[in-house]
Amino acid sequence: MPLLTDKNSILEVMRKHPGQVRKLLIEQGSERILDECIREAKAQGIQFRVLSKDAFFSKYKGVKSHICLERDDFSYTDPDHLLNTLKTRENPFFCAFDGVQDPQNLGNIVRSAACFDTEALIIPKDRACAVTDTVAQIAQGAIEHVPVTRVTNLARYLDALKKTGIFCYGLDEKGERPLWTTDLKGPVCLVFGGEDGLRRLTKETCDAVLKIPTNPSFPSLNVATCFALSAYEVKRQRWVMGK
Amino acid sequence: MPLLTDKNSILEVMRKHPGQVRKLLIEQGSERILDECIREAKAQGIQFRVLSKDAFFSKYKGVKSHICLERDDFSYTDPDHLLNTLKTRENPFFCAFDGVQDPQNLGNIVRSAACFDTEALIIPKDRACAVTDTVAQIAQGAIEHVPVTRVTNLARYLDALKKTGIFCYGLDEKGERPLWTTDLKGPVCLVFGGEDGLRRLTKETCDAVLKIPTNPSFPSLNVATCFALSAYEVKRQRWVMGK
Repeated sequence: MPLLTDKNSILEVMRKHPGQVRKLLIEQGSERILDECIREAKAQGIQFRVLSKDAFFSKYKGVKSHICLERDDFSYTDPDHLLNTLKTRENPFFCAFDGVQDPQNLGNIVRSAACFDTEALIIPKDRACAVTDTVAQIAQGAIEHVPVTRVTNLARYLDALKKTGIFCYGLDEKGERPLWTTDLKGPVCLVFGGEDGLRRLTKETCDAVLKIPTNPSFPSLNVATCFALSAYEVKRQRWVMGK
Repeated sequence: MPLLTDKNSILEVMRKHPGQVRKLLIEQGSERILDECIREAKAQGIQFRVLSKDAFFSKYKGVKSHICLERDDFSYTDPDHLLNTLKTRENPFFCAFDGVQDPQNLGNIVRSAACFDTEALIIPKDRACAVTDTVAQIAQGAIEHVPVTRVTNLARYLDALKKTGIFCYGLDEKGERPLWTTDLKGPVCLVFGGEDGLRRLTKETCDAVLKIPTNPSFPSLNVATCFALSAYEVKRQRWVMGK
């Protein structure tokens, strides 16, 4: 994920992972509107260069922004490392995705995950969207906040999570019981299908399958929305309990 | 909104508003994979034509689908008519949007609104995205299920709703109290900002401003996600009460 062009994403990298910034380039004449970025760069000791309009344009053809940040590739969290951290987590809240293909959806998922303190997103290595430039832009900087793990075999990884005492709940239109009457305050991993729903093997690996009750004549939620609602519900239940 | 190209949207128009279909055209060789659409057209008495690959391509250049439906323009619900229906609604649930600009967001909003039985979406006539082709495609047919009203002056319309006994709650990061502790079972209109949040005048018109509690170091939800969470919360509270 070398190139970021939106202000929010750029600010978040500088704040959270200044060591991963390779280059920060600003188009001449935009210094005033990019003042916040320049101040953050100075505060973090990040060097930046101001390029003439022509030089900026010829370097970043097609980019609609006046600022570009080149950063190190996104680093995924090692799946074994994630398992090893479980001893120290009180009530972990993970989410797994069984093959989301659309970067727009994955970007929105990462953004909502940061808002609702999801502790890790688990995605398959194959036949699924990875954390690309587009995902990072849509996540508006949230990618710096949420650990993402890529696994070779999702069902096997869910089994490993279950052995440590984590409940794995699938989410599906045809689920057995409503999300909102299910206790989500303990250690949980919620499991979502891709754009076409949960695959059979993944569904069978789950401890139970939940549904978000929707209008029977138009039941089909987008996967990113379905994730956001579920993460909200986890947060709501834990907040109510915390009172 | 003359042209629809995705299967779900096309099926929903034929089911819900067959009288608004002007033309249905199918590319030769795709009859089998479009079998569901063809059966629905026959069931509704909608005439369709099968075009050769060349004829289809030259008619719909740039369209990636093998089926196209031309329909009447989308009809907005008259704002005064909506007010007049209030006497017959028990606990109306409306949502207003103060200038959403991005068709991707509006499309997602319409889709979630259909899933959670939002009774009307209220949008301003100016400086806001209308129900375009793109919105309809992203809504995946949901546009046939949700009444949309366009008003000249949003604040004035909210005032009219308040006079009929509807509570208007704004949603904002800096809201006074959490969405989940607010009683949303009575007549409500939730009010959302555009991509840049609620404007001052709109905020002042609301009875109260609510927030969705999020991670303080990354609080910013997308407007379509914020809407989906709120509609889910309304549905959840009413379902729990209905038990």
